Amino acid sequence: MKVGFIGLGKMGTAMADRILGAGHQLAVFNRTESKAADLVSRGATLAKTVADAARFGDVVVTMVENDKALAHVVHGDGGIARSLPKGGIHLAMGTHSVPLIAELVQVHETHGQTLVSAPVLGRPPAAAAGQLGILAGGPAAAVEKCRPLFEAMGRRTFECGEKQVGAAAAKIANNLVLACAIEGMAEGFILAEKCGVPGAAFSDILTDGLFASPAYKVYGKIMVDEAYDQVGFTADLGLKDANLVLAAAGLARLPMPSANVLRDRLLGAVAHGDGGKDWAVVAREQARAGGLD
Amino acid sequence: MKVGFIGLGKMGTAMADRILGAGHQLAVFNRTESKAADLVSRGATLAKTVADAARFGDVVVTMVENDKALAHVVHGDGGIARSLPKGGIHLAMGTHSVPLIAELVQVHETHGQTLVSAPVLGRPPAAAAGQLGILAGGPAAAVEKCRPLFEAMGRRTFECGEKQVGAAAAKIANNLVLACAIEGMAEGFILAEKCGVPGAAFSDILTDGLFASPAYKVYGKIMVDEAYDQVGFTADLGLKDANLVLAAAGLARLPMPSANVLRDRLLGAVAHGDGGKDWAVVAREQARAGGLD
Amino acid sequence: MKVGFIGLGKMGTAMADRILGAGHQLAVFNRTESKAADLVSRGATLAKTVADAARFGDVVVTMVENDKALAHVVHGDGGIARSLPKGGIHLAMGTHSVPLIAELVQVHETHGQTLVSAPVLGRPPAAAAGQLGILAGGPAAAVEKCRPLFEAMGRRTFECGEKQVGAAAAKIANNLVLACAIEGMAEGFILAEKCGVPGAAFSDILTDGLFASPAYKVYGKIMVDEAYDQVGFTADLGLKDANLVLAAAGLARLPMPSANVLRDRLLGAVAHGDGGKDWAVVAREQARAGGLD
Amino acid sequence: MKVGFIGLGKMGTAMADRILGAGHQLAVFNRTESKAADLVSRGATLAKTVADAARFGDVVVTMVENDKALAHVVHGDGGIARSLPKGGIHLAMGTHSVPLIAELVQVHETHGQTLVSAPVLGRPPAAAAGQLGILAGGPAAAVEKCRPLFEAMGRRTFECGEKQVGAAAAKIANNLVLACAIEGMAEGFILAEKCGVPGAAFSDILTDGLFASPAYKVYGKIMVDEAYDQVGFTADLGLKDANLVLAAAGLARLPMPSANVLRDRLLGAVAHGDGGKDWAVVAREQARAGGLD
Repeated sequence: MKVGFIGLGKMGTAMADRILGAGHQLAVFNRTESKAADLVSRGATLAKTVADAARFGDVVVTMVENDKALAHVVHGDGGIARSLPKGGIHLAMGTHSVPLIAELVQVHETHGQTLVSAPVLGRPPAAAAGQLGILAGGPAAAVEKCRPLFEAMGRRTFECGEKQVGAAAAKIANNLVLACAIEGMAEGFILAEKCGVPGAAFSDILTDGLFASPAYKVYGKIMVDEAYDQVGFTADLGLKDANLVLAAAGLARLPMPSANVLRDRLLGAVAHGDGGKDWAVVAREQARAGGLD
Repeated sequence: MKVGFIGLGKMGTAMADRILGAGHQLAVFNRTESKAADLVSRGATLAKTVADAARFGDVVVTMVENDKALAHVVHGDGGIARSLPKGGIHLAMGTHSVPLIAELVQVHETHGQTLVSAPVLGRPPAAAAGQLGILAGGPAAAVEKCRPLFEAMGRRTFECGEKQVGAAAAKIANNLVLACAIEGMAEGFILAEKCGVPGAAFSDILTDGLFASPAYKVYGKIMVDEAYDQVGFTADLGLKDANLVLAAAGLARLPMPSANVLRDRLLGAVAHGDGGKDWAVVAREQARAGGLD
Repeated sequence: MKVGFIGLGKMGTAMADRILGAGHQLAVFNRTESKAADLVSRGATLAKTVADAARFGDVVVTMVENDKALAHVVHGDGGIARSLPKGGIHLAMGTHSVPLIAELVQVHETHGQTLVSAPVLGRPPAAAAGQLGILAGGPAAAVEKCRPLFEAMGRRTFECGEKQVGAAAAKIANNLVLACAIEGMAEGFILAEKCGVPGAAFSDILTDGLFASPAYKVYGKIMVDEAYDQVGFTADLGLKDANLVLAAAGLARLPMPSANVLRDRLLGAVAHGDGGKDWAVVAREQARAGGLD
Repeated sequence: MKVGFIGLGKMGTAMADRILGAGHQLAVFNRTESKAADLVSRGATLAKTVADAARFGDVVVTMVENDKALAHVVHGDGGIARSLPKGGIHLAMGTHSVPLIAELVQVHETHGQTLVSAPVLGRPPAAAAGQLGILAGGPAAAVEKCRPLFEAMGRRTFECGEKQVGAAAAKIANNLVLACAIEGMAEGFILAEKCGVPGAAFSDILTDGLFASPAYKVYGKIMVDEAYDQVGFTADLGLKDANLVLAAAGLARLPMPSANVLRDRLLGAVAHGDGGKDWAVVAREQARAGGLD
């Protein structure tokens, strides 16, 4: 299969490498061209422009950092909308807002193209090992066409339905569930602490039964140790995610009270200078709210 | 050890049985006397009144249904406060509010007695097998004195510090964390659903990685199947728990925004006639909020 | 009319004085007897006990500080429930919780008595001038019987329906509306401040048009001047009111998200040591939430 | 003074007319040119393009509908940024988001121009009578230069400081205070109703004292009559405003819990098909939340 690939950050590079390794023909584009060198040395074609990548095959993958970057590569003068051939597929694999995905569905339709939304679960090592979880949303025929690529990159594909916004929403909603778990722990920890319970004891209680899962163990330990400087995921990024949830909820016309709690909590953390700390720092913010500062 | 035991519901009976089986002398009291018959046939003494149970030994255990019942057995005319000998221990093992526990600490202190608060994790089968998790809070010497009883009843004792309210708070906070998980899932599920994602797909995504724990698997399945009639724990009881959290937070002077979300959600479920359903029915309430009714 | 009156605080004394001045026969009781002296010197009978006041006439008015005090004068050994004659009316004029009023409706019904709930709007000077607003709830015939008393004490009676809880709820809900106004102002002020707007300018904007009412002018000025030490109504009392709203909402099965916001805000203020300040201090709490501390 | 004016809706036309009437030279631009006819017949110059209006004088006023429109007239090919002379002032008088105003401050600075933000209070009749309230934010010298225009259009100018975002935030925060008042009333009304209080009685109570202001009288009456079809301001627009508040709060790093409540409430109203009703319809949404549907 001939595939264009736009966006060679850590995740993108690992994913492109898997596609190449599976025997597909690949043209790669990155704003900073030097990042493409390694892939080119292994057989990929260097695309000089977004348009070159978009015109290379039937599918162009984007793995760019945020909505602004994606809007730019689609809408710009030589953007995907104007350069991807009719009938072509834009396979968007970054984590993007539901409103942007909804807008791009229309844009591509207008140009006779199809958008497939397929954000991923997993970090660069999982990407390098072809072990991503892939959340795929879009018309069945288009998703089917992308399947060889999913098989090259992922361990499992979750079928999120025919609407592209579905896959985007599922990724965002999964992050929400994690954030709610952390917030719940934070409120529980500080309540216990204000009542005299040692943090380690509360952590043991939590993870002894129903919550014997990685999320609760990892974040429980961070809160007990107040080790917010060992950053897995920053409060700043958590805030960005909370805003993505709320944007999705806005388009879906759905009140989401927990998402509001999270946004306010993370805004507070950022206001207090903790934006660069691990997002478990919401527990410190909860302590502040109770006068423990 | 000579032990009085008040409250022979399913949990209390199983716990009393374990104490008896460990070789302690036991006097049991229950409002409905017939429930004591089996334990008496196996060697327990029948206490005709609360006072008889409280005077029997150095420790009197209470395992009663709620705050009202506990306040009654402590404060009433022949209540524990007036009948437990000086130096005696009241070991309260039910799930009670932090304000009541705080009040009883004072009451017992006034009478030269000591309160130990030790709510439990686990359901009747775990109690029957001596596999409870025990959350113990109180002065170290008093907790130490209760240890043989904890060993008879439990698999593990979590030391919650010298303040009795601590153990009560830890139990309540643990329930809060579970409730937050369910609420997070409910909001995530309905957002995904409104965006066209099949429930089973979202459940698979959730429980594939970070949340590979019983809580998420069990509640995810209930939400996917909308099997709210298979009741593990009712919305009514969930609301009671949310109120316990907020009462604790009130005494601790701690804002707890997620607890507010939960209380409102469960109040809504009860208002819509779903109080007797499994508390995962908050997902249906979230659907209502988004006009999916 | 022969009337018993229990509770001679500032409000109660002024109200009892109006009843006496209107020519009714009055028996007054207060825990601290000396507070009754002035009224007795002007013709009132001194009731030595609650029971004496309750037996004096067809109506016994209570104007006591809180739920605990009201429950005590009704339920105690010589309480109103056991001493007010059959067919008698207990006219409760303090601000009490909806759950307590609901309970007392039952208690009095059991004893063949009738509860009328009639909390008031206005402070001691208004009471002394017979200028209270009276919120009356209860069976029409009983309310009618109390009308001469309302006319002696008030400037206007608001008919809150045949359910006694209605009047209690209306009083509490009125306080809620004020609290929401203050919270809205607090959030608006601090947002404006964080964006560089002088407080006085924002206050001018607010009160220039739609909000040209006393509430906004008074509280706007307090916030601009940060004059939280000039206490009209404390944050502690505001918190008590928020809890009354939530108790009413619990009984009515009604989620009330703004009441949650208020409770958390005021809990935060108390946690930060501002419980004794004027409740407009929620603006300082909002500033803290945004890192302006 | 020579002034360009862009945006001739009802408000813009009335405001331009006032400027013209005060003796200033005016060039007017509107996308639909016919709307300019009347002003041109009275002496205004017709600007054929945005650029023509921007080049006409030292100040160009914009009074356009929303952020999208303002971004377009500033950023487009012949936009204000590229056509307003160095040293010129862009006086933005629409209601715009704080993030957009913050962005335009930078854009204009880059081009040697100055932005003054001056949203207004009042509706078209007030504009026609020169009775607007004007919220002015920007560097003192630039604001001073605009003063003759403010005097032509307004009854009063509120000085919102040297930061342009301040005036935008003040406008938005003023709307928030109104929305909080309506939400507070909605929660209060429905609580009272669920407890049996007639709506008219509660409305009388509310507006009798502290809240004897237009906002409470108008909205109280709408809620009592459930007259949500007599639309003053729609729930859809209320939701837009709530989003503006939250966008401002995001940039200012300020949690605003009441704004979250409002957004969710209005989202719910829209989800239930009430987006086109008057925004007092939040009371119906509150009723739904309590099962009164």
